[in-house]
Amino acid sequence: MGMTLTQKILAKHTGKESVKVNDLIEANLDLVLGNDVTTAMVADIFDESGFTEVFDPNKIAVVLDHYAPCKDIQSAELCARSREFAQRFSMPNFFDVGEMGIEHAIIPEKGLAAPGELIIGADSHTCTYGALGAFSTGVGSTDATAAIAKGSLWFKVPGAIKVNIIGKLPKYVSGKDIILHLIGEIGVDGALYKSLEFTGDGVKELTMADRFTMANMAIECGAKNGIFSVDKTTIDYLNKTTNRPYEVFYADDDAEYEREVNINLNELAPIVALPHLPSNTKSVDKVKGMHIDQVIIGSCTNGRIEDLRVAAEIMRGKKIAKNVRCIIIPASQQIYLDAVNEGLVNIFIMAGAVFSTPTCGPCIGGHMGVMASGERAVSTTNRNFVGRMGHKTSEVILASPAVAAASAISGVLASPIDLTIEGAF
Amino acid sequence: MGMTLTQKILAKHTGKESVKVNDLIEANLDLVLGNDVTTAMVADIFDESGFTEVFDPNKIAVVLDHYAPCKDIQSAELCARSREFAQRFSMPNFFDVGEMGIEHAIIPEKGLAAPGELIIGADSHTCTYGALGAFSTGVGSTDATAAIAKGSLWFKVPGAIKVNIIGKLPKYVSGKDIILHLIGEIGVDGALYKSLEFTGDGVKELTMADRFTMANMAIECGAKNGIFSVDKTTIDYLNKTTNRPYEVFYADDDAEYEREVNINLNELAPIVALPHLPSNTKSVDKVKGMHIDQVIIGSCTNGRIEDLRVAAEIMRGKKIAKNVRCIIIPASQQIYLDAVNEGLVNIFIMAGAVFSTPTCGPCIGGHMGVMASGERAVSTTNRNFVGRMGHKTSEVILASPAVAAASAISGVLASPIDLTIEGAF
Repeated sequence: MGMTLTQKILAKHTGKESVKVNDLIEANLDLVLGNDVTTAMVADIFDESGFTEVFDPNKIAVVLDHYAPCKDIQSAELCARSREFAQRFSMPNFFDVGEMGIEHAIIPEKGLAAPGELIIGADSHTCTYGALGAFSTGVGSTDATAAIAKGSLWFKVPGAIKVNIIGKLPKYVSGKDIILHLIGEIGVDGALYKSLEFTGDGVKELTMADRFTMANMAIECGAKNGIFSVDKTTIDYLNKTTNRPYEVFYADDDAEYEREVNINLNELAPIVALPHLPSNTKSVDKVKGMHIDQVIIGSCTNGRIEDLRVAAEIMRGKKIAKNVRCIIIPASQQIYLDAVNEGLVNIFIMAGAVFSTPTCGPCIGGHMGVMASGERAVSTTNRNFVGRMGHKTSEVILASPAVAAASAISGVLASPIDLTIEGAF
Repeated sequence: MGMTLTQKILAKHTGKESVKVNDLIEANLDLVLGNDVTTAMVADIFDESGFTEVFDPNKIAVVLDHYAPCKDIQSAELCARSREFAQRFSMPNFFDVGEMGIEHAIIPEKGLAAPGELIIGADSHTCTYGALGAFSTGVGSTDATAAIAKGSLWFKVPGAIKVNIIGKLPKYVSGKDIILHLIGEIGVDGALYKSLEFTGDGVKELTMADRFTMANMAIECGAKNGIFSVDKTTIDYLNKTTNRPYEVFYADDDAEYEREVNINLNELAPIVALPHLPSNTKSVDKVKGMHIDQVIIGSCTNGRIEDLRVAAEIMRGKKIAKNVRCIIIPASQQIYLDAVNEGLVNIFIMAGAVFSTPTCGPCIGGHMGVMASGERAVSTTNRNFVGRMGHKTSEVILASPAVAAASAISGVLASPIDLTIEGAF
């Protein structure tokens, strides 16, 4: 029996020829990641456990992204604790205010993730780097602490679900629509502790931005990881971001998959996840017109330059509806700079949106767009659980940047496709 | 006995030929201002008092600037309450996320303040509009509520201090240095309930930005208001911002002043106010080298485009010191847009600063740069009281944008003058 792509990477990092589903293994780590919330906890556990050395300062990354620049004293103390910990061990990959961005944007951008690597992070959306053909997954702060001390961590080898993708995305349909569609199909526990392996001819039509978004939300259907095989698009991206050597793995032809799901990109349309689960998906056309108060375009899911370009294309020369606050948050300082230089920020400000410094912010109801009681947002983030973006009676509709931008302009939940109808706005 | 400029404006709004110092008068209001914190309080008091109508929706301005886009549920509820109140009375000058900026930047920018007017606001820095030759002052939320209902408010006519300004500002010395110098000279209660009237040949050398900064900080020496006579610089500014009619007043030649203070601009050098009072001033040269953790450039005091230009001039092609977080906050969306279009944002991001959406934020320790215990900031804001910017053991050094920018680059408190010494950085 052959191995899946995920199993290949895990075997390699365990020093074995092969691993089987449900094997308990101890694997060596290429990168351990923390943010301002979890690194402060990791530092506390690390010190309380009597650890005095980290396994390799070069293989640890700390990014202050949740509440930085800080919103209150408590968050300032978390950042100060993270800063102290990173500086104590001279970690070269510590990203403070001014260098930072959302961790899952920063890590690939800085070339800190590459194919075949094993990456963990004390943040659930660490699964993002599967887009580059790495095995990456989120862990708790206790596991992250042990990992930082030892350089290895135990895993149960996951079974796999193969997602066969064919066709080509229609205009204004993106990776976000694909992953929401998938989560709607299989449910929020549809891939529980499984590896989602995205494959098929349709993958080559997907940009890196699409792939990052899809891998990022693998956790939203319970997956241990989501992963793409390396292709020309991956290599082109890596050539721009890293010059470290890496090893590319591919699934064996006779790899075992517990389930296969087929997605024909040609058949997809803009989709949203209504409150309060990412699996509560509807075609935008079926629910457009819903009242909204706020639009968020950003996050580790959809704060990339490609996302901002789509939003700017839709907003260019238009105005945000009077009843809507539109908050756009680039996922990194580099993306911020690119957006300035490409003229996107000009478009956003002229439209009446605000353009924030990078932060996870509103996604976790923590900063820069938290909602009051009864308010509703269309958001390009990844979770729409009860109270996720603020008051427990506030609501989040998950959507692509195109849907979010069209909604901001029209003042209600709207489809970007309708924008092509002359005079629709 | 003649009247001061302030007394002339108060008399006019009271319907009397003249007023005298310490007269208790009831004066008609041209504008009542509130922000997200105080408007929520005003709305509560308004409703509890049984008021049902405001005196004139066109003469009320509400600006969400302290915690918007919101940082937590509590601030979101304050914004929601302010929004409801503004919308209930169809106030045309309600500035929500995307239209807003710091209130004291927005009001002049939108042409809502003009010479000879009487403006109050439920915010202590409402004195800013004295730069335009208006009488403007901060009041409590209870007074603001009564004012919104009645359109008038009682005042005790203030005595006056004349500030005679001569000379011309040296390079990298600005309105901020002048007002810090003055507060250092007379103390934080040096002008208690007095009108500060800025006059003399040196005034014509001051930009509107300098004047706004100076009037803004009049409250920091206890003044009821700070005011400038209208001159060509004022008229040029007003021609760009408003086409409403306004009446220009001047002090009588025989107006009575309780005190006169002389300032020779030629003799000023960059100055800072060390913790924990704005009057604790020192020449930068005497205290440069002090350890800092953070630099804030922004606020109602120094978040104007002129301030950002000075900072950008100093930062161009340089990098923020590794140990410093530099947070730059334009005071309005228009200033944000101008900074993008003038290439300033590009300079800031390249230098490793962050460029925030407009907010009062860190000035009141409320958002976007709150400090942890033991941290120290150089800040262009207006108050450096104990705990003002975060933890009670954190410290704030007040400075001009030039000093703040030079400090961000050098990593310690620094003088911008030293930048002119070749190789200083």
